[in-house]
Amino acid sequence: MPPRLKDVAARAGVSIKTVSNVVNGFAHVAPDTRARVQAAIDALGYVPNPTARRLRGGGSGVIALAVPELRSPYFAELAGLIVRSAEPRGWTVLIEQTDGRAGRERDLVAGLRRHAVDGLILSPVGLDPSMMGRDRLPTVLLGERMRGGPADHVAIDGAAAAADATRHLLRLGHRRIAAIGGPARPSAVTRAQRLAGFRAAHAESGLAVDPRLVATVSGMHLADGAAAMAWLLDCNPEPPDAVFCFTDPLALGAIRTCADRWLDVPGDIAVIGFDGIDEGRYSTPSLSTVAPDTARIAQFAVDLLAERLGGGSAATVPPRAICVEHRLVARESTLGRPSRAA
Amino acid sequence: MPPRLKDVAARAGVSIKTVSNVVNGFAHVAPDTRARVQAAIDALGYVPNPTARRLRGGGSGVIALAVPELRSPYFAELAGLIVRSAEPRGWTVLIEQTDGRAGRERDLVAGLRRHAVDGLILSPVGLDPSMMGRDRLPTVLLGERMRGGPADHVAIDGAAAAADATRHLLRLGHRRIAAIGGPARPSAVTRAQRLAGFRAAHAESGLAVDPRLVATVSGMHLADGAAAMAWLLDCNPEPPDAVFCFTDPLALGAIRTCADRWLDVPGDIAVIGFDGIDEGRYSTPSLSTVAPDTARIAQFAVDLLAERLGGGSAATVPPRAICVEHRLVARESTLGRPSRAA
Repeated sequence: MPPRLKDVAARAGVSIKTVSNVVNGFAHVAPDTRARVQAAIDALGYVPNPTARRLRGGGSGVIALAVPELRSPYFAELAGLIVRSAEPRGWTVLIEQTDGRAGRERDLVAGLRRHAVDGLILSPVGLDPSMMGRDRLPTVLLGERMRGGPADHVAIDGAAAAADATRHLLRLGHRRIAAIGGPARPSAVTRAQRLAGFRAAHAESGLAVDPRLVATVSGMHLADGAAAMAWLLDCNPEPPDAVFCFTDPLALGAIRTCADRWLDVPGDIAVIGFDGIDEGRYSTPSLSTVAPDTARIAQFAVDLLAERLGGGSAATVPPRAICVEHRLVARESTLGRPSRAA
Repeated sequence: MPPRLKDVAARAGVSIKTVSNVVNGFAHVAPDTRARVQAAIDALGYVPNPTARRLRGGGSGVIALAVPELRSPYFAELAGLIVRSAEPRGWTVLIEQTDGRAGRERDLVAGLRRHAVDGLILSPVGLDPSMMGRDRLPTVLLGERMRGGPADHVAIDGAAAAADATRHLLRLGHRRIAAIGGPARPSAVTRAQRLAGFRAAHAESGLAVDPRLVATVSGMHLADGAAAMAWLLDCNPEPPDAVFCFTDPLALGAIRTCADRWLDVPGDIAVIGFDGIDEGRYSTPSLSTVAPDTARIAQFAVDLLAERLGGGSAATVPPRAICVEHRLVARESTLGRPSRAA
């Protein structure tokens, strides 16, 4: 007869619950306890049985992740991190691209899609709280929208991060600072928050924001940033001396337009983005940015969903809102290159 | 009573099959016929019923797309295009990241995952034909691996594309051409094909490939390209005058290392990549590359799968292999910047 959970518990001198926590990859087990349990698992040749585990839980072992678009490097990185965070639990993650459509997001939350999934991690764009009924999939919401809504929620403080990016430019002495990524519709909460942070940092310094320096964009991609930068340069007799872009791809596109106009970054115009994607580390100039702790967002999303699916007392607590940290990453696009002699 | 398919057919003066083809988004309907059917649909207020359609077909209306990693911009772009190509058919696309693991790919093909999907589009890495049994999901394979295998297949000619990239460098007068992306394992078919094309172009010109100029990498990302470029510069007393990188991220990483060493691209070293991702259009310098027709790959993948799922005679034909075109895109990283006066 193969060894069972209770054999492992007896050998390790811990409770069955603790062994289960280790096997299920939960974080809140002390490292030495975890090591003792793992040693007992190895010694006995215990093999956790995910199928039995799922049947016991009544679940499929499959969760869905829905993001607006995979073409965005930020969401592609986030998706990869969520897949990795879900792996120790034996979960399969199915990813769906919503294009930000409210109807699609609503159907996902309601579990109306035909495939059987246990839960959902959703980065909503069009959805609003009224569209989330009582009878729905266990759901964790990501991103700055719908904080304080009807479901668990993980996000950074977008306004604070935007203010940090703007303060960085102000501290470097810039005074005509443009913004690329302004909201085209009032419902674009994420963008509106970033714009609010941009304005707040100006207000702190007693500066007004010149409305001609706020560029609205339809998308958040490289091409949108390149076009918005061209618009800023063409429409302002006095060009900006710095630009805060609401995503890193917008910033990389803006830098390309500067190169096309033979403007030096940051000598003529300093540029900072928002995302912390890998591409910004390797661009020329490398890109200053504010970076959410994306790995932590992924881990929280999976852990919160696991608690909802776990069926214990944690499954019924009121919706929780987790605010994840961000950090300012200053690179060449604001600081300049180290001199050649260095 | 709501209008039915046959009412639309009668009004448009076409067969029910033709209306069905239009409603299902199949490509092989003449534009004027399609317009006539659409006019009848609009006039009658006919609403196709996807649920009924799925029940009739016995399918779930859900297909799976499995790619090695979403972090790669090429696969992220491809995934977005496949979602878009599947939309006119009313299909939901679930995306899974395999990390290139053979076991995971095998389980997907066998339909062993618990969720019900009708078919699979898979970009295999570890899988080999012996792992694909008779009893499996309808599958379309993508990428240069497993051509001529047991399932429908869509890819470009990787060796030919690599030869085109190399010839471009040779035509520009480069003679010490390095390659970044060489296979670390013999099973890395895609990389081996690109290396073969690189060698073939050299052979055509009567040139030998210097083995110290072929850099093997463990991954195909920005960081791998940056490290490989540093290795090439450190280990070769005479540096290369050009580099062909087997992906665009490798090339962008290599360019960053050149910037760190104060080497001008392309003045000191010309660089060309492989992928045609959007990032290469906006980098500084903009990136020369060979670009697969990714939109066409996506469309073929969906169309081939639809034929397999359609249940007609097309569902039982032997596996087909589609070779999609690529094109050379020459930009600043090989041609240099236009002069400022221009």
